[in-house]
Amino acid sequence: MGELTIWTYDWVPEGPRGFVRDLRLRWACEEAGLGYAVGTVPFDGRETNHLAHQPFGQIPFLRDEEVEIFESGAGLLHLARKSDKLMPRDPVGEAETLQWTIAALNSIEMVTVPWWFLKMSGDENDDLTGWVGKRLDQMERVLGEQEWLAAGRFTVADLLMADVLRIPDVRSFGHRPATEAYVTRVTARAAFKKARADQIGHFRAIDQKRAAGEGEN
Amino acid sequence: MGELTIWTYDWVPEGPRGFVRDLRLRWACEEAGLGYAVGTVPFDGRETNHLAHQPFGQIPFLRDEEVEIFESGAGLLHLARKSDKLMPRDPVGEAETLQWTIAALNSIEMVTVPWWFLKMSGDENDDLTGWVGKRLDQMERVLGEQEWLAAGRFTVADLLMADVLRIPDVRSFGHRPATEAYVTRVTARAAFKKARADQIGHFRAIDQKRAAGEGEN
Repeated sequence: MGELTIWTYDWVPEGPRGFVRDLRLRWACEEAGLGYAVGTVPFDGRETNHLAHQPFGQIPFLRDEEVEIFESGAGLLHLARKSDKLMPRDPVGEAETLQWTIAALNSIEMVTVPWWFLKMSGDENDDLTGWVGKRLDQMERVLGEQEWLAAGRFTVADLLMADVLRIPDVRSFGHRPATEAYVTRVTARAAFKKARADQIGHFRAIDQKRAAGEGEN
Repeated sequence: MGELTIWTYDWVPEGPRGFVRDLRLRWACEEAGLGYAVGTVPFDGRETNHLAHQPFGQIPFLRDEEVEIFESGAGLLHLARKSDKLMPRDPVGEAETLQWTIAALNSIEMVTVPWWFLKMSGDENDDLTGWVGKRLDQMERVLGEQEWLAAGRFTVADLLMADVLRIPDVRSFGHRPATEAYVTRVTARAAFKKARADQIGHFRAIDQKRAAGEGEN
């Protein structure tokens, strides 16, 4: 009791492993030194099997004692209130962290996710592609001028922005050296590597359990 | 000194008046009883003329003493920390407010804004249209079960979600009575009406000043 629990799927296909959004919360906990357990909901039937916890049928969601919170961005800001390793406590540093966290969600991901969604559907749209390029150019200008997004140090805003920008199709869209150096720098952190390895291990363990079950007949 | 300042454009065309996002911050200030001034940046040259304040060339941004913060969602969460009329102070109520504020930005607007952008470009995309319909159906289910999104009362999450859902093309997309009742209920608030009227008045005043200037030769 009193421990954090991060909810994710019990299993996902190989493709998204290492990118499923429970990784954002795992990473934040690793950065902050917060212990956590992992809970699962079934991937099969995910559209309707956990609507009481997440009304869009997605993961992750986070439990922290009596608090339960969905939306990975909201979970990150909730965790950031628990540790100044994720967000400084002075008003200016906190505001900068908040604005860049929201920018990752509503100025970058709002463009990159629909673009990627259409691209995966074989229906890439030129208008959206142009918009992605423009936003990435704007980020390249920012990242050419500063090492971190907020408060002159790593914050949860960098965690989220780097997670948005490291999606392979986004990362390989054009040549933006400051952005590439930033993604490389942020994802070189030990906490990211541990979170990613733990997520991949979580899904692989289910494969092995299922394979063993099949072997038993 | 000590007053809040909300930055917006000096002028916009008729079409977006009543929908420009400084309205979100005006509305929140009206709900909370916070006084504010309005600052402007020129609409002409907006893509590059205020990048030091807003790296994507957008508005609004907010100044609060030594804090300056862009992204309307971040500005709303900043203001919510100043008044419990916008966000309750108990951990569960605060988490609910935070999650639904982020949901409006990253689960609803992330789909509706790109959809609307392509629709306006004459390039409506069936995959995105389907995604919008699915998300609005999910919101309809939620809004059929509860009057407010968080804490059983009006919060900044309702302000933002209603602002996202009241966009005419979104509001007229299909027949969702609980959502329609919700948008009607939230936008019937006096604070919304004042914020909307003030924004429209702000842009109209510039028209009149310009017309007078032209008359002078």
